[in-house]
Amino acid sequence: MRTDVKHFKCKVKDGVATVALDRPERKNPLTFDSYAELRDWFRDLVYDDEVKVVIFASNGGNFSSGGDVHDIIGPLTKMSMKELLNFTRMTGDLVKAIVNCGRPVIAAIDGICVGAGAIIAMASDLRIATPEAKVGFLFTRVGLAGCDMGACAILPRIIGQGRAAELLYTGRSMSAEEGAAWGFHNKLVATDQLDAEALEWATRLAAGPNFGHMMTKTMLAQEWSMSIEQAIEAEAQAQAICMQTGDFERAYKAFVAKERPVFEGD
Amino acid sequence: MRTDVKHFKCKVKDGVATVALDRPERKNPLTFDSYAELRDWFRDLVYDDEVKVVIFASNGGNFSSGGDVHDIIGPLTKMSMKELLNFTRMTGDLVKAIVNCGRPVIAAIDGICVGAGAIIAMASDLRIATPEAKVGFLFTRVGLAGCDMGACAILPRIIGQGRAAELLYTGRSMSAEEGAAWGFHNKLVATDQLDAEALEWATRLAAGPNFGHMMTKTMLAQEWSMSIEQAIEAEAQAQAICMQTGDFERAYKAFVAKERPVFEGD
Amino acid sequence: MRTDVKHFKCKVKDGVATVALDRPERKNPLTFDSYAELRDWFRDLVYDDEVKVVIFASNGGNFSSGGDVHDIIGPLTKMSMKELLNFTRMTGDLVKAIVNCGRPVIAAIDGICVGAGAIIAMASDLRIATPEAKVGFLFTRVGLAGCDMGACAILPRIIGQGRAAELLYTGRSMSAEEGAAWGFHNKLVATDQLDAEALEWATRLAAGPNFGHMMTKTMLAQEWSMSIEQAIEAEAQAQAICMQTGDFERAYKAFVAKERPVFEGD
Repeated sequence: MRTDVKHFKCKVKDGVATVALDRPERKNPLTFDSYAELRDWFRDLVYDDEVKVVIFASNGGNFSSGGDVHDIIGPLTKMSMKELLNFTRMTGDLVKAIVNCGRPVIAAIDGICVGAGAIIAMASDLRIATPEAKVGFLFTRVGLAGCDMGACAILPRIIGQGRAAELLYTGRSMSAEEGAAWGFHNKLVATDQLDAEALEWATRLAAGPNFGHMMTKTMLAQEWSMSIEQAIEAEAQAQAICMQTGDFERAYKAFVAKERPVFEGD
Repeated sequence: MRTDVKHFKCKVKDGVATVALDRPERKNPLTFDSYAELRDWFRDLVYDDEVKVVIFASNGGNFSSGGDVHDIIGPLTKMSMKELLNFTRMTGDLVKAIVNCGRPVIAAIDGICVGAGAIIAMASDLRIATPEAKVGFLFTRVGLAGCDMGACAILPRIIGQGRAAELLYTGRSMSAEEGAAWGFHNKLVATDQLDAEALEWATRLAAGPNFGHMMTKTMLAQEWSMSIEQAIEAEAQAQAICMQTGDFERAYKAFVAKERPVFEGD
Repeated sequence: MRTDVKHFKCKVKDGVATVALDRPERKNPLTFDSYAELRDWFRDLVYDDEVKVVIFASNGGNFSSGGDVHDIIGPLTKMSMKELLNFTRMTGDLVKAIVNCGRPVIAAIDGICVGAGAIIAMASDLRIATPEAKVGFLFTRVGLAGCDMGACAILPRIIGQGRAAELLYTGRSMSAEEGAAWGFHNKLVATDQLDAEALEWATRLAAGPNFGHMMTKTMLAQEWSMSIEQAIEAEAQAQAICMQTGDFERAYKAFVAKERPVFEGD
């Protein structure tokens, strides 16, 4: 997987890609360029064999301050509807690319995580945070609506409709404790342990079964608006496919041999 | 917005409408008349420019005892299917009118809040309650099903499918503490602070951006059964519309000037 | 209702059926035979008048260890796609049969409750557990995906999308305390009180209104992927039907007479 990106940090090691926005002196705002490059990078993951898990990390004590006021909001106030729709679709395409990338994405959240930054955290599969994490869907603070990049659909499914409504209407920050109690954060860890903890989770998931994880991720999104009956049929098909992978047989043989299975991803 | 209503209390001040059922001596039951008048009043809100936020308040220590046993349940036991369906559709139309009214609705819940009263609280966007609040979906207690006015669809999205099933099957009351822990209530406050707290929330939301709030409310309902991809496209369109409002530009200019934005709602 | 089953335990008393897997010495694994027989038994419930509520009980300190490694997983590794799909559809049909059986199903969970066992608990309406209950969706541990028998659709609606993702990706057990805090378990009770508590819940629900309970269960599933408007119309119809039952009139008359209603189920 390519790591020669210009508008964010990216490294890949032992199947784990770690990406982070990279303007820590301004709390890592997004720009037109970083939106587009992140979208393309996540899209490319689909066909990649090297990266098994992605960590979306914080940088310099903060996750992201969202769309930059000067670089993004200023220009937006002068755009035509056609240009605006191009922009909102591009930001939405980043969420789609994260959701459709086929491997678990773990957000490691420290400090400020607001606006589009909060959306990236929300669009991730798992979230680990520090006590300093402040997650704010603050679109109403800039005169907009809470419906940004899928927030009105996705956030209620994570923390419940009532709590999501409060955050989206008021724009107030969700504290780390609230995030953990409400099911937004999967775990809180001390600030100096955030990267290590995220890497431990990622390493465990990277051990596979990666084809299975890809299918889990696919179906979590795919069944979003299916009926129960449709979802059960969809899973019957998806799991039957997984039962023809070598990893299923490897797990069985390891069990019989009383060993730990070693997955190979096919 | 008209406040000359006959079957409930209604006042409008500084953009905040406060409504409440008004038979406190009987814990504020609903009647055929109050159902219909509330439905019409919430429908009229859509085209109104004065009311920015609605508080559905308690009255005399209780929110509502639901459909009146003598005025409603007695007559229902004698109706034809055509008449029954007219009634259940009218009650459902009240929920639809609340959901579609285009501004945040805050339920301020004290004491008894059961049956159709619990449904009104559930259909609101935000819920503030006192420690005495008892919310009961007690339809099974009167020989009916838990599926009343949208409860089987909406309640699970607020508190989770398992807790909703318990409340809807058993009809037991949810305590204030449970309601807060489960995400039904956004906040608990002391009884004598309920009205002031609701007014504070309403006043803050009434300051806008009201066009944005309208769109947030619209999309929270609109995306209910969309796929993730459809929801993201729907939000790209909705947010692009919001980016052409004056409030978006006002927020940007205020930010640049290091001032607090003053929203005007267009 | 027939209780002459071969591959699980089953008794019916006072309107409450209690079923349990019955190989306690191996923590009650499922086999091809018990899957199929449970599916058929739950399907037959739909037309039965005797059973009002089902308890899916633990046996010998455990709920179920899921699909048996030797009896099920071994053979699966040798099957054709046609045979695999027959199997995954059969397991999915058990979930459909539980969801569509028309009466509340209470899972009484002690000890190990993993794999297909966790799915049966998830597909139940209510869950009572002991502090020893360990619920694990451990499909990834055997090289498969988390999307098994509806888990990617149903589990997120019970405990939230983020927590469900963690359990489905990692396969780790959910502790009893987590299950209660997250809304998976409706109640925790001491181990020696599990059966009595489940029976008490079941007995209360068996007292009716059973037609109402059937409709509540039907609509909780039916409205799963409807829009809010569709759900409200569906409930208007469903509740109008319930208003023509005798139980509705019995409840009204009992209320007027200041008595406790005695429901008859029609």
